[in-house]
Amino acid sequence: MLIKSVISYKEALEIVKKHFKPNISEVSLINSLNKICGEDIKALISLPYFKSSAMDGYAVRAEDVRGASETNPIILRLVDKEEIDEGEAKKVFTGSPLPENADSVVMKEFCREDNELVEVYKTVFKGENVREIGEDVKKGELILKKGDKIRGFHLALLSSLGVRKVKVYDLTFGIINTGDELIELEEFNINKLNHKIVNSNLFLLSGLINELGFNYKYYGIVKDDPEKLKDVIKKAIDEVDSLIITGGTSVGERDYSVKVAKELGTLLIHGVNTRPGKPFAFSLIKDKPVFLLSGYPVALLTQFELFIYRLITKRKKVKLPLSRGVASELGRLDLLRVKVYDKVEPLRIGGSGIISSLIKSDGYLLIPENVEGYEKGEEVEVYLW
Amino acid sequence: MLIKSVISYKEALEIVKKHFKPNISEVSLINSLNKICGEDIKALISLPYFKSSAMDGYAVRAEDVRGASETNPIILRLVDKEEIDEGEAKKVFTGSPLPENADSVVMKEFCREDNELVEVYKTVFKGENVREIGEDVKKGELILKKGDKIRGFHLALLSSLGVRKVKVYDLTFGIINTGDELIELEEFNINKLNHKIVNSNLFLLSGLINELGFNYKYYGIVKDDPEKLKDVIKKAIDEVDSLIITGGTSVGERDYSVKVAKELGTLLIHGVNTRPGKPFAFSLIKDKPVFLLSGYPVALLTQFELFIYRLITKRKKVKLPLSRGVASELGRLDLLRVKVYDKVEPLRIGGSGIISSLIKSDGYLLIPENVEGYEKGEEVEVYLW
Repeated sequence: MLIKSVISYKEALEIVKKHFKPNISEVSLINSLNKICGEDIKALISLPYFKSSAMDGYAVRAEDVRGASETNPIILRLVDKEEIDEGEAKKVFTGSPLPENADSVVMKEFCREDNELVEVYKTVFKGENVREIGEDVKKGELILKKGDKIRGFHLALLSSLGVRKVKVYDLTFGIINTGDELIELEEFNINKLNHKIVNSNLFLLSGLINELGFNYKYYGIVKDDPEKLKDVIKKAIDEVDSLIITGGTSVGERDYSVKVAKELGTLLIHGVNTRPGKPFAFSLIKDKPVFLLSGYPVALLTQFELFIYRLITKRKKVKLPLSRGVASELGRLDLLRVKVYDKVEPLRIGGSGIISSLIKSDGYLLIPENVEGYEKGEEVEVYLW
Repeated sequence: MLIKSVISYKEALEIVKKHFKPNISEVSLINSLNKICGEDIKALISLPYFKSSAMDGYAVRAEDVRGASETNPIILRLVDKEEIDEGEAKKVFTGSPLPENADSVVMKEFCREDNELVEVYKTVFKGENVREIGEDVKKGELILKKGDKIRGFHLALLSSLGVRKVKVYDLTFGIINTGDELIELEEFNINKLNHKIVNSNLFLLSGLINELGFNYKYYGIVKDDPEKLKDVIKKAIDEVDSLIITGGTSVGERDYSVKVAKELGTLLIHGVNTRPGKPFAFSLIKDKPVFLLSGYPVALLTQFELFIYRLITKRKKVKLPLSRGVASELGRLDLLRVKVYDKVEPLRIGGSGIISSLIKSDGYLLIPENVEGYEKGEEVEVYLW
C-alpha cells in the first residue's frame, strides 16, 4: 500500500474539520433521545422552583418547636392557609409546597393531630425535611453541552426545566460500497459458498451512523468499474449531505474510488499516518464532503472514529494500567482495540479484516504521534465504545 | 416511610424473575440494532470461508520461491487457472480467492511481470499475505449471547456469516404516572411558575425502555384518585405486556397505587431493602407483571435498574479504586451514583429527587447486603450507564 502523500492525523483532521459541518436541527424533546446535542443548554429557572415538603408531616417554624420532645410536646394551632404565623402548623404531604413563613417539616410520625391542634414531639432544625429552591439545579447552570449525547437522564432534567425543544446535530450520509467481491446479505447462500463476501460494511456503518443520531441512504454495491461509480456518486451527491464510499482507496490497479473522487471534485487528503486506517481519503464534490474509507472493517471503523465520530461527540473515558507493553512508530497515530476491566488488555488479534476483534473489544486506546509506545503497568486512557 | 413487609433484594428479585418474562421476537438483522439478543448465536460457518489474498501480488507455493532475493530472483510461469502447479504463479488482488495449491502471496512490489513470466525478488513463508479460513471466526464459535446488546459491530459480523434474522427481547410497557402535583410538559409555563411539576418520569422511563429496545404506551397522568387509577389500569392492562406505575407506592394518606394494585390483582412485593428504592412494589394483574415504582427519579431509576434492566441485559463493568470511603447497613443493598475516571468518586449529592445527580454520574456501584461499606482506595466494580 504505497500512498505517496501521507499526512499526519493532525493535519488531516484540520482539513476535515474545515469542510465537514453537520446541520443543526431543532426537534421536540422526546425526539432528541440518543441524538447529539447541538447547543449549550443552560437552566432558565432553578429546580425545584418552589420550596416543598420532603415528607408527609407538618410545616412549622423551627423556632416554634425548639425543645419539643416526647416528654415535652409543643402544641401548635393547625391552619390551612398559604402562610403560617407564629405558633401555627400546616399539614403537608411529600411534594406539597411549603406555606410562607414555614422553614421546616416535622414528620407525621412525631406529631399527633387533635382537632385544631397539633402536638409536636420532636425538635427540627431550620430546613429539615424541606426541598429548597435550586437544590437540584441552579438557574444559569449548564445542563448539556454541544456534543453531549442526549440520554433519558437528560430528557428527565430538561423536561423538569420546561425545555420543549432541543437543537441536535443532523445529517444524512449517502453510503456507497465498492468491490467486485461484494454481495448483498439477501444474495448470500450458506449452502452454496462461493468467493463472494457479504457487504458487512453497510451494517457496520449503519450502527456507527445511528450512534450519532444521523441518517443514511444506501446506494448499493458498485462493482470495480470507474464509470459506474461516477454515475452513482453523481446521483447520490445531490440527495445527501455527505457521502461515505468504502473500498478502493488504496493505490492498486482496482482501487478506483480515489481516482474517481479526484475526477469529480477536489481531493484534499489521500493517506494519513494512522494504524490502521492509512488509506483514508477525503474529497469535496459539489462542495459536499466525501469520505473515502477502507473496505476493511477495522480500518473503516478507525477512520470513522477518527474523522467523523470524534468531530461530533465524545466517548466516555477511563484510565487504567496496561496488562502488557505496546509499541508504535514515532509520527504515527495508533488505535488499539482493548478489553477493559481492572486492567487494559490490548487485543492480540491482528488484521484490519478481523471483525470479531471489534465485538471482543470494550473500547480503544490511542498511541499519539510523539509516543513510541507504553510499558506494562503504565496507566493509559481508554475510550469506551 | 414505614413499609411493614420489606424483604431483601434477593428475595424480591426471585419473585420478579418468576413472573416477568419478556417475549422473544424474530426481526431482520438491520432491525435488531440496539435491541437485546434473545438467543445464543453460534457461527454456522467459518469466516473467512475461503482462503484469499491479503495483498495485491502473486499467489505462489512458498517452496517455489525459497531463497529468492533482489540479487537472485526466481522466475515463475504466470497462469490464470483456479489452481497452480509447481513453478507457477497467479496474479491476485486483495481479497481474491487463493488458487488451489498456492499457500502464500508475494506482494507485487517484490515482483516484476514480464510477458508470461514473473520474476520474484523476495522469499515468503507459508501463509504469508494469505487470509486463512476461520481466521476471523471458527465454525461453532459463540458470536452473541442471550442478553447481549446488539451493536453495529455485531451486525457487521452476523451479516458476514449470512445471518438474516435475529431473535430479540420484545415487550411493550404501559406507563401510568400518578400524582396531584404533576403536569405534562406542554402545560408548563415558565412565566407562570406554580406549585406543579412536569411529569419528567415519563421522559426518564422512555430513555430506559429505549435502552432495552422495548416500546411503551403512555396512559397519562392520573391524579390522586383511586377510582380513576383503577379505570386507567383496567384499560391499560389489556393493551400491554407489562405495566409501570410511578408514584404513590409508599404508605402515606395519598399513596393509592399499591392499594389499588392489591385490589385489582395479587400484590407480591411491597418494600425492598435497598437504598434508594425501598418503596418498590410488584403485583400481578390479569397475570401480567405490574411494577409500582417510586415517583422520585433516582429511586425510580434504581428500581428499574435492579428489577427490570438487570434481568434483561448487562452493563459494561470496570474495577477501580474508591476516592473515599462509603458506608452502608448490613442487610441493605445500596446503589451509589459515581463518577469514574482513574478513580471511582461517589457523588455527594443526596436525595432521591435530585435528577442532576444522574447526569453527573457515569455509572453506579452496588454495596451488597453482607457488606458494611468500602474503604478509600479499595477497588470496586462500577457498572457504566
